[in-house]
Amino acid sequence: MATVRKLEALDDIIHQKVRLGVMSSLMAAGEADFNFLKGALGVSDGNLSTHLTVLEEHGYIRVRKEFVGKKPRTTYAPTDEGRRAFEAYVEALEAFVRA
Amino acid sequence: MATVRKLEALDDIIHQKVRLGVMSSLMAAGEADFNFLKGALGVSDGNLSTHLTVLEEHGYIRVRKEFVGKKPRTTYAPTDEGRRAFEAYVEALEAFVRA
Repeated sequence: MATVRKLEALDDIIHQKVRLGVMSSLMAAGEADFNFLKGALGVSDGNLSTHLTVLEEHGYIRVRKEFVGKKPRTTYAPTDEGRRAFEAYVEALEAFVRA
Repeated sequence: MATVRKLEALDDIIHQKVRLGVMSSLMAAGEADFNFLKGALGVSDGNLSTHLTVLEEHGYIRVRKEFVGKKPRTTYAPTDEGRRAFEAYVEALEAFVRA
C-alpha cells in the first residue's frame, strides 16, 4: 500500500526536530561549528550534543576538530550519505503531505 | 533569529509521524474511518487510538460515531483549526528544509 511505504520512508534519524534543524542548517551552510548551530537552533549544549552524536554515529555528518590559535573549534558538515538521506527525506515528506 | 522561529513553528502535535500520517490522510481524503487509517498507515490499534486522541484533544480532528446497519463506525475528519494547523506546519517545514 502506497501510504505505508511513505510513512516508513520518513527517516526517523532525520525526522526528529533538532536533528532536522541540524541537517537543514548544514545542508544550507555547507558546514557550521557548534556555537553557530546552538544559536541558530536555540537548543542547550547537552541537547545539541546528543543529537550531533546520533547524526555522526549514523554517518550523516562528519566532525572536524581543530585549533584556531589556542581555541579548540569543532566543525560539522554533512557527509555524502547524509546529503542523500536528507534529500530522500525531503522528497518523501513532500510526497507525503501533498498526497 | 529566523531559524529559531522556524524550529518552533514546527507544530509538535503534527510533527509526530503517526499524527502526520493521520492529518495527511484526512486532508487528502476529507474524512476516513478507523480501519482505513489503520491500514493506510500500517500501525496497531493502540498506537493509532493514542494519536487520534491527541489530535482530538487538541481540536485538530472531529470524531463521528454512527451505526451502519448494526455495525458501529467511527469516522474522523479535520476541523477548520486542524486544517489551518496542518497548512501552517507544511509551510513552516518547507521554509525550513529549503532555507
